[in-house]
Amino acid sequence: MSTRQLKLGFILHGVGPGWGDWRHPDADPTASTNIDFYLRQAKLAEQAKFDFLFVADSVHITEKSSPHYLNRFEPLTILSALATATRNIGLVGTLTVSYSEPYTVARQFASLDHISKGRAGWNVVTSWLSGSAENYGKPTHPPHEVRYRIAAEHLETVQGLWDSWEDDALTRDKASGEFFEPSKLHTLNHKGEFFSVRGPLNISRSPQGQPVIFQAGASEDGRNFSARYADAFFTENSSFEASQAYYADIKRRAAAFGRAPERLNVLPALRAIVGRTEEDAERLYREAVSLIRVEDALVALARSFNEHDLSQYPLDGPFPDIGHFGAESNRSSSERIIRTAREENLTLRETALRYASPRREFVGTGVQVADAIEHWFNGGAADGFILFESLPRQLDAFVSEVVPVLQQRGLFRKEYEHHTLRGNLGLDVPENRNTAARRQAA
Amino acid sequence: MSTRQLKLGFILHGVGPGWGDWRHPDADPTASTNIDFYLRQAKLAEQAKFDFLFVADSVHITEKSSPHYLNRFEPLTILSALATATRNIGLVGTLTVSYSEPYTVARQFASLDHISKGRAGWNVVTSWLSGSAENYGKPTHPPHEVRYRIAAEHLETVQGLWDSWEDDALTRDKASGEFFEPSKLHTLNHKGEFFSVRGPLNISRSPQGQPVIFQAGASEDGRNFSARYADAFFTENSSFEASQAYYADIKRRAAAFGRAPERLNVLPALRAIVGRTEEDAERLYREAVSLIRVEDALVALARSFNEHDLSQYPLDGPFPDIGHFGAESNRSSSERIIRTAREENLTLRETALRYASPRREFVGTGVQVADAIEHWFNGGAADGFILFESLPRQLDAFVSEVVPVLQQRGLFRKEYEHHTLRGNLGLDVPENRNTAARRQAA
Repeated sequence: MSTRQLKLGFILHGVGPGWGDWRHPDADPTASTNIDFYLRQAKLAEQAKFDFLFVADSVHITEKSSPHYLNRFEPLTILSALATATRNIGLVGTLTVSYSEPYTVARQFASLDHISKGRAGWNVVTSWLSGSAENYGKPTHPPHEVRYRIAAEHLETVQGLWDSWEDDALTRDKASGEFFEPSKLHTLNHKGEFFSVRGPLNISRSPQGQPVIFQAGASEDGRNFSARYADAFFTENSSFEASQAYYADIKRRAAAFGRAPERLNVLPALRAIVGRTEEDAERLYREAVSLIRVEDALVALARSFNEHDLSQYPLDGPFPDIGHFGAESNRSSSERIIRTAREENLTLRETALRYASPRREFVGTGVQVADAIEHWFNGGAADGFILFESLPRQLDAFVSEVVPVLQQRGLFRKEYEHHTLRGNLGLDVPENRNTAARRQAA
Repeated sequence: MSTRQLKLGFILHGVGPGWGDWRHPDADPTASTNIDFYLRQAKLAEQAKFDFLFVADSVHITEKSSPHYLNRFEPLTILSALATATRNIGLVGTLTVSYSEPYTVARQFASLDHISKGRAGWNVVTSWLSGSAENYGKPTHPPHEVRYRIAAEHLETVQGLWDSWEDDALTRDKASGEFFEPSKLHTLNHKGEFFSVRGPLNISRSPQGQPVIFQAGASEDGRNFSARYADAFFTENSSFEASQAYYADIKRRAAAFGRAPERLNVLPALRAIVGRTEEDAERLYREAVSLIRVEDALVALARSFNEHDLSQYPLDGPFPDIGHFGAESNRSSSERIIRTAREENLTLRETALRYASPRREFVGTGVQVADAIEHWFNGGAADGFILFESLPRQLDAFVSEVVPVLQQRGLFRKEYEHHTLRGNLGLDVPENRNTAARRQAA
């Protein structure tokens, strides 16, 4: 089909991502480590032809962490488990470059790409909580700017390892006993500022050539990193206008790096609440908000300020002066929160509750939510969305009420076009860099 | 059932593990990254009531590596993929302590244990090839004795993290909003010689409490490590007598560590070749041996000598004096090879080919192979075996010809006794160390 198509991802999570979601009467509070819950959601998203499943991650908790951080599956294992229970849907996992080794990361994602026959994606994160360092024997968490230098070198190393084997390197000639063509196996020999990796990788090039790269950086460093390396961008902008600005900015930056902007997918977070009627949706929205405890909302907000304890400030006073706690942590998020609080003159309580609540714009009937999606999609604010489930069975509601409307409007597929994530996202399989070098030398 | 029962594992591999196996006319030379091949074998082993699947690993290749090292799935991803396609069979994966972080290892195996509802096992290895260091930015590969000190500290850290949450810590009380009981969440605060890990782990205690520990150390350091920490021992002894001696030694050492020897499973490698008749088995054996190229056998042998190039020595001269290349690498294996070569006055060629060939003892009809298994099992040389498939469809032959004989003799189960690996191996779920401490303090 020639018209531009909406992309849809679904964030798999157990309890949450709203801070009180697990308390809902219909919620399964054991869902975070319940494989049957994950299997059901994955299959439902695939039936609805979603592009991909997305698994978030973090590598550090304290006794104050919110329920959905405290206890959950590790992304590579759960995505691999879902790979053999699905056939077409993409499998995108979050993994930090700050506390992982490129050789292992390259292997695990290449392995997932082989297992899923071409459906793996890596959401590259730098880990913004300094407590993470203490689980990995590091004296200090690297500062913000250094983390993005680490990220670039880590990712380039992983991508180099993914090209260790040219596509036709494994000849497997039973008669001669030649298993591979030695000139098509390449040693990386990377020696950089942060990593030193010889290679080659001990797994052949995977069906997608290179697993798809996701990124969510929104700070200045993060945007440049995303624009340069990522195929898809996960954003959490606070409004249509903010998302438009981000969209234009990231595509401009990508073009400056010599990339084709129309190939890059900007995918804002979507916490839709879908009812059969407007009244039903409004009731569901109030139900979701009522589950949020202000103390939980404060802890949630604190994650953007390196887990600084916000309970020490007056709840009904003006938003406190704590910007420096976010500067070396999740800079883009902390700056956005402070800006909103200042502009709208919000108290700490109001800020925390707003941050923890779904946005009104995506609350409504199937047609209303589809209208909002189309508005963002056609208005230069999104190439698609990543859906969060804010209340139990809201994935079901989105699938039955919203997806058919999007399909009727010709915005969203009725069948998968491809069996790989690259194919469905409209991305080509990149040529192996070593094959390209050989071709250019010839 | 009250009588002692045989334990059976199956090593999943694609091409190999014999050095020429992929050249067999019926072999799928793409098997190493073919998920359908793995799924078929896993399901077949489960139908036959095997205790577990086992995935070997290494973290380093060169252009001289053998086909089954060059290209293969990463263990945690492939085992997770198989978890949702099986129900009862254990899932044991190899992972090196020398190039991994305890926090990530603890998470991935705990996650696999939750996904599989209690079937995960970790084969703890120290990585004996010094080339591994070059893929992980380490200046040098640690010497043999240091590797076992690293292994002990790494494993104890992982096991401590697995007990972060007491079994009843997650109260999930919707009415009060209390998701967990804070006094039952424990921070590890480990600061040791090699690792510093704060904890707690961000996943609840898994169905087995602690995933099962496998180990294959056979050197003095390795045996002490195994006897102290492992639940199951994978050995590659060269004869019934050698296995008897190992069996007695490891159980004596375990008893000295205060462990119940009858709970520990000693499981030698079993490269059976099963025919419908003796002549058929003999033909299959000759077929397997004929596929081995002496140059491949030399490379295989060199892995016990830190990949020292053996092609420089006369093939038909006496076994060369290269013991020091093995001393800091795979010490137990290199010592065994040299001893055998000296005692039997073997040439380099003869040593390499013998090492690469299946043992005659387990070549025969179903009844003959069952006889040999029973002899080892009742003769104090094994509590069970880990089966390698030496020729295509030999798992099928073992399942149809050998397993029924073992079942008829009352040596092997007809149905799974439990749905967890611990249950099937006769291992209890260990009490959480923090619960035990609380109980003792009360």
